Amino acid sequence: MSVIVWWLVTVVMVAVHSASAGVVELNWEVEYKLRWPDCKEGIVIAINGEFPGPTIDATAGDTVIVHVTNKLSTEGVVIHWHGIRQNGTPWADGAAGVTQCPINPGETFTYNFIVDKAGTHFYHGHYGMQRSAGLYGMMIVRSPKETLQYDGEFNLLLSDWWHQGSHAQELYLSSRPMRWIGEPQSLLINGRGQFNCSLAAYFNKGGVKECKFKDNDECAPTILRVEPLKVYRLRIASTTALASLNLAVEGHQLEVVEADGNYVAPFTVNDIDMYSGETYSVLLRTHNPTPSRKYWISVGVRGRKPNTTQALTVLHYADAPEYEHLPYPPPVTPRWDDYDRSKSFSKKIFAAKGYPPPPEKSDEQLFLLNTQNLMDKYTKWAINNVSLSVPATPYIGTIRYGLKTLNYQKPPGKEIVEDYDITKPPVNPNTTKGNGIYSFQLGRVVDVILQNSNVLNGRGSEIHPWHLHGHDFWVLGYGEGKFRLGVDEKTYNLNNPPLRNTVALYPYGWTALRFVTDNPGVWFFHCHIEPHLHMGMGVVFAEGVDQIAKMNIPNAVLGCGSTREFLMNRGRH
Amino acid sequence: MSVIVWWLVTVVMVAVHSASAGVVELNWEVEYKLRWPDCKEGIVIAINGEFPGPTIDATAGDTVIVHVTNKLSTEGVVIHWHGIRQNGTPWADGAAGVTQCPINPGETFTYNFIVDKAGTHFYHGHYGMQRSAGLYGMMIVRSPKETLQYDGEFNLLLSDWWHQGSHAQELYLSSRPMRWIGEPQSLLINGRGQFNCSLAAYFNKGGVKECKFKDNDECAPTILRVEPLKVYRLRIASTTALASLNLAVEGHQLEVVEADGNYVAPFTVNDIDMYSGETYSVLLRTHNPTPSRKYWISVGVRGRKPNTTQALTVLHYADAPEYEHLPYPPPVTPRWDDYDRSKSFSKKIFAAKGYPPPPEKSDEQLFLLNTQNLMDKYTKWAINNVSLSVPATPYIGTIRYGLKTLNYQKPPGKEIVEDYDITKPPVNPNTTKGNGIYSFQLGRVVDVILQNSNVLNGRGSEIHPWHLHGHDFWVLGYGEGKFRLGVDEKTYNLNNPPLRNTVALYPYGWTALRFVTDNPGVWFFHCHIEPHLHMGMGVVFAEGVDQIAKMNIPNAVLGCGSTREFLMNRGRH
Repeated sequence: MSVIVWWLVTVVMVAVHSASAGVVELNWEVEYKLRWPDCKEGIVIAINGEFPGPTIDATAGDTVIVHVTNKLSTEGVVIHWHGIRQNGTPWADGAAGVTQCPINPGETFTYNFIVDKAGTHFYHGHYGMQRSAGLYGMMIVRSPKETLQYDGEFNLLLSDWWHQGSHAQELYLSSRPMRWIGEPQSLLINGRGQFNCSLAAYFNKGGVKECKFKDNDECAPTILRVEPLKVYRLRIASTTALASLNLAVEGHQLEVVEADGNYVAPFTVNDIDMYSGETYSVLLRTHNPTPSRKYWISVGVRGRKPNTTQALTVLHYADAPEYEHLPYPPPVTPRWDDYDRSKSFSKKIFAAKGYPPPPEKSDEQLFLLNTQNLMDKYTKWAINNVSLSVPATPYIGTIRYGLKTLNYQKPPGKEIVEDYDITKPPVNPNTTKGNGIYSFQLGRVVDVILQNSNVLNGRGSEIHPWHLHGHDFWVLGYGEGKFRLGVDEKTYNLNNPPLRNTVALYPYGWTALRFVTDNPGVWFFHCHIEPHLHMGMGVVFAEGVDQIAKMNIPNAVLGCGSTREFLMNRGRH
Repeated sequence: MSVIVWWLVTVVMVAVHSASAGVVELNWEVEYKLRWPDCKEGIVIAINGEFPGPTIDATAGDTVIVHVTNKLSTEGVVIHWHGIRQNGTPWADGAAGVTQCPINPGETFTYNFIVDKAGTHFYHGHYGMQRSAGLYGMMIVRSPKETLQYDGEFNLLLSDWWHQGSHAQELYLSSRPMRWIGEPQSLLINGRGQFNCSLAAYFNKGGVKECKFKDNDECAPTILRVEPLKVYRLRIASTTALASLNLAVEGHQLEVVEADGNYVAPFTVNDIDMYSGETYSVLLRTHNPTPSRKYWISVGVRGRKPNTTQALTVLHYADAPEYEHLPYPPPVTPRWDDYDRSKSFSKKIFAAKGYPPPPEKSDEQLFLLNTQNLMDKYTKWAINNVSLSVPATPYIGTIRYGLKTLNYQKPPGKEIVEDYDITKPPVNPNTTKGNGIYSFQLGRVVDVILQNSNVLNGRGSEIHPWHLHGHDFWVLGYGEGKFRLGVDEKTYNLNNPPLRNTVALYPYGWTALRFVTDNPGVWFFHCHIEPHLHMGMGVVFAEGVDQIAKMNIPNAVLGCGSTREFLMNRGRH
């Protein structure tokens, strides 16, 4: 199959923007600022002085133009538009070293792309650990023909926060021996959390003190003010560096209707699990409490032994007394290691009616064994024994100009490693660094089987939320233990698998996904846990190498490394 | 006290330099490392894992080639070769935004230049506040025909150290209102200091505890091991971010013989004052103590109200008992605000015999009024009311290709401001940002009169050590109060003024210097206090603009901003 499957693209587009598409044009200055994200002063990366960055509000079909000026002192910067497929504009994907050179201090780079599909998205830094430093914000793409019905909406951008700065964290993780950064000090909802005080302190006599906010306190929570008997859409995105989360609203159920910008068959839960890189829309139906009152919204840690208190905010019914304490304590976050509960949630997610099923068969099968290894005594994450080292020259430029600095003809392994025991620490713990690039022809149906394994030392296996740039993929299934070739494929859901761009790989398990190589470009595929990516947990998919070589890629994204050298010198006279 | 011993290699400087000049070629990797500079863990910028960076040891006439690989995660980097005039290689001067683009992470840039003149020099980062982060090292250029006679030598590289990281410091200084970084926590000698302990604790009962070093402790002092009745050359450089220093050796006088790479008429003192950016060689003659013993070497703060304890190390005579306490306390640093004492030291410095006098008359007079101002409520340092904002494109490239992004035809003022009262805070405290560029034709004799003034708030005036790249200059004189045009010129020393590259501007005073524009290039001239430069305290001298426009400047230094755009696009086909 060597033809782009355009039928897929058109059908999946929930609503085609028929009227003349608009333009959303923004000027952004990115710089460090002193802020109080969790009632303790810290350094954040702000956009136009705002933390989190401004919310982008566009309509499907719009062109989004963002002029990003780097006002950091000595650091480069990029911005990745998480969930936007960048069809035809792969150089605007904002992944440093993959699709562009970092924007130098003092320079302005313009991102220019079409948001072809409605959904709840976000954007974030994708260079070093700048996402961890607070470079993120919401990106809402509205459907011109929204099929969901609701009366109001709220954005909830969830993140985690360390008091140690991101530069120090990078160094710790890169040190020999590796020094772990530990659990976050706070969880933030829309950039707001409380470290040394609690909104719910009066339920714990003698514990942390109650928060007393002053006007305009940067750590005062965003209150969700609602009317009775209405339907609200909560658009939730997790941009955590590390934490897997669970969100609950006291006394209210949540109807899940969207995941990663795709409608899902609605289902109702008491709380939702979220991994870094995921977005959801849930519908919340308000009651008519008499007397009017407030309810907790709580966000807690899952999947790692938590050492971080819940983030809290309040669902505030109209006319509820402003300063009255809430009558009950916040919802309790489910036990961190109740993975069955997590998987049960994941397995409730199916595509909404109307989505076509995936192609019945795949052309290629790519096994990605996730391991934690040692390399020259540095702790690394590796995929098929290769720990990703992103080169100084973006892949997209190296391929465009056929430079010899990248050998994309020699990918790491693709096959399942038959004799690898995923239940034990790696037998040979050593790994190598590499560019981790896999290239695909266009029009191929590719299955990726992510295989989890035991960590480097002791017994344990971690959750990894994998995020693919440039694509949605079908989540075909999850399984326990090692993937059984020729057997587990039969368990795939080929009927109504959800389309997503991020999916969890559970401890000691496997996750299978399918996508079609219909988007020429170079696409990052990586664990969305920022420390894991920093330690090498990613690969790169080069899609349509021949097409990339003919692309008109703006020089502005290639102004570093060997493409800069090549392009500057070819004009020498 | 168990310490690292840096055994002295005694070299009698009668080596004959062969007719053919040599090449010193080095491969450097620059990266952040966790170190214990003052017995407390901190993050330093190391070179090949060393902090301070490796000492360069070359001979006058040699070609020095340094391949610098940037291993920082997201930051650019450059290295300035402080004291090297870069005649014919102005693009190798290593001043970010002036003579080159920062080296991007993952890239290697090669500095290639001739060290034409013997002397005690050093090198350091010149981007953001990376010098403050520890990016520095010694650079010794030996004379093939050394006229000084000595039996051995030691390098002493002096610096100051903060526990707050340099990124946070940059942000504090750039915040509105400005947040001052405070005095350093420690002074370091060759990157080694002691914060929570003291070598001399036993003289202060109940105070800080005595240092107990373990083997290979990174904060154990460099001991100077000497023989009796010998002559030692101490090569001393100050690369402090802020502190002005005083160095004394207990029981020994110091004969000053070299300043900033130029021989001076020898004079003997009990201690020397040093400002950031200065280097000295002093000859120390050992006695014959019986029994053999140890003496203190102490370094303390001058010119600012100190809040930092002295840095200490030991002059250890052969056969002195290794673990015995020293009999007397360390030398006391002179009172911080005894400026007369400081000036008295400066005024003892004259060129050694044999140096020709400066040209008798100057062709141009450039007055540089140093003020502290407010700009849009940001605190800035300004020169003639312009606070330097280094552009994203290096001046040298903008001039080379005649790009319109820099208007060097419109310099800031050059004249003395007749009605400015330097004894009071600025009447109009507002200032503007600018590129601060002055251009000169070649072959001109230029006098620069640096004029100090009162700070922004309250009464006070600070010391500013001004450093000129690409040149030595003659220090014609120092004066009190406001420079009197037509009067103070008559006090100039035109007989034997010392040649230097750094000179102090004292509180409320003026300093006059003269240089000849004989080195085509773009040369930074700035206060060497890193926070002051960060806040705009500098100007740029473009020398021989017509010659620069014809220079063969390597593309590798122009790969950013508008020169990158220009050079990449001219090759488009």
